[in-house]
Amino acid sequence: MIVLGIDPGTAVTGYGVVVGERMVPPRLVECGIIRTRPRDSLASRLQEIHAGIAELIQRHCPHVLAIEDVFYARNVRTTVVLGHARGVILLAAANARLEIAEYPPAEIKKAVVGTGGATKEQVQFMVARLLRLKTAPEPADASDGVAAALAYLMIAALPRIDREMDARPARTVPLRR
Amino acid sequence: MIVLGIDPGTAVTGYGVVVGERMVPPRLVECGIIRTRPRDSLASRLQEIHAGIAELIQRHCPHVLAIEDVFYARNVRTTVVLGHARGVILLAAANARLEIAEYPPAEIKKAVVGTGGATKEQVQFMVARLLRLKTAPEPADASDGVAAALAYLMIAALPRIDREMDARPARTVPLRR
Repeated sequence: MIVLGIDPGTAVTGYGVVVGERMVPPRLVECGIIRTRPRDSLASRLQEIHAGIAELIQRHCPHVLAIEDVFYARNVRTTVVLGHARGVILLAAANARLEIAEYPPAEIKKAVVGTGGATKEQVQFMVARLLRLKTAPEPADASDGVAAALAYLMIAALPRIDREMDARPARTVPLRR
Repeated sequence: MIVLGIDPGTAVTGYGVVVGERMVPPRLVECGIIRTRPRDSLASRLQEIHAGIAELIQRHCPHVLAIEDVFYARNVRTTVVLGHARGVILLAAANARLEIAEYPPAEIKKAVVGTGGATKEQVQFMVARLLRLKTAPEPADASDGVAAALAYLMIAALPRIDREMDARPARTVPLRR
């Protein structure tokens, strides 16, 4: 199972390609960033992001694209621009018929660190640890891309019984008093 | 000058192709909508929008893509999803090396009707009038796409002196009392 994890951004989009197999620790294949020039128009920056992701997909043939959700906003304008970037990334994934997994940031942190309120440093520490790297990938955007890929593998690896228990309806056998 | 005007949306994207020439009234070539299925994933809806716009560009060879801005929001989530749609539309335009003109909704209304606070009905009335149509294009999304294209032509046709006067710094000659 090859997963392409993405931390989307118009200025810097981080990515990580991680291979996961049953009973074997995940392995980092490649990570990095797609950086666009602030002076360029939004349209040509989107073009670069789309071409960069399409090239990664072609080179690594991932099964899944795992990506952060962006449906929360402090600054509406920033988030809407981010939506543009996310749009062309999802398009590249759909064109290549990849499975797409979307996670809110807190879910990625929870899957990788164990708590949704984890700090950036804790995420980086666990990314390095899970992939047996000496240090976390730099810059932080690349590390966040890798974290999204790891989140997919960690959530997929959860023991089945957990998920079945979540899905089972609560029993309503009255207790004696 | 062939202009492709777009009113972006994830559910319905309206478009209009308008030809404008010096001293000749603008002419409507085609208008319509790209409608996507609500049940489909966001990624495959983006794929349809992108393919639809790319096909229009290929068929009509416009010089310019005129599109509404979306950087204002009542509902952040809706606006961010709209950003995704806008992203793949701008990508199609950039891939075809079109000039891109972006206008806030009020600027489109001002160019077409004369006031930024115009109602939807006023815009439709003026779209029909400017293009010498018996009725405004239906549905309203198609009409809004046409309005974006007309806005580009109307703004481009403004007499030069107006724009120079806008650009000239205000004089500060004190008045006698």
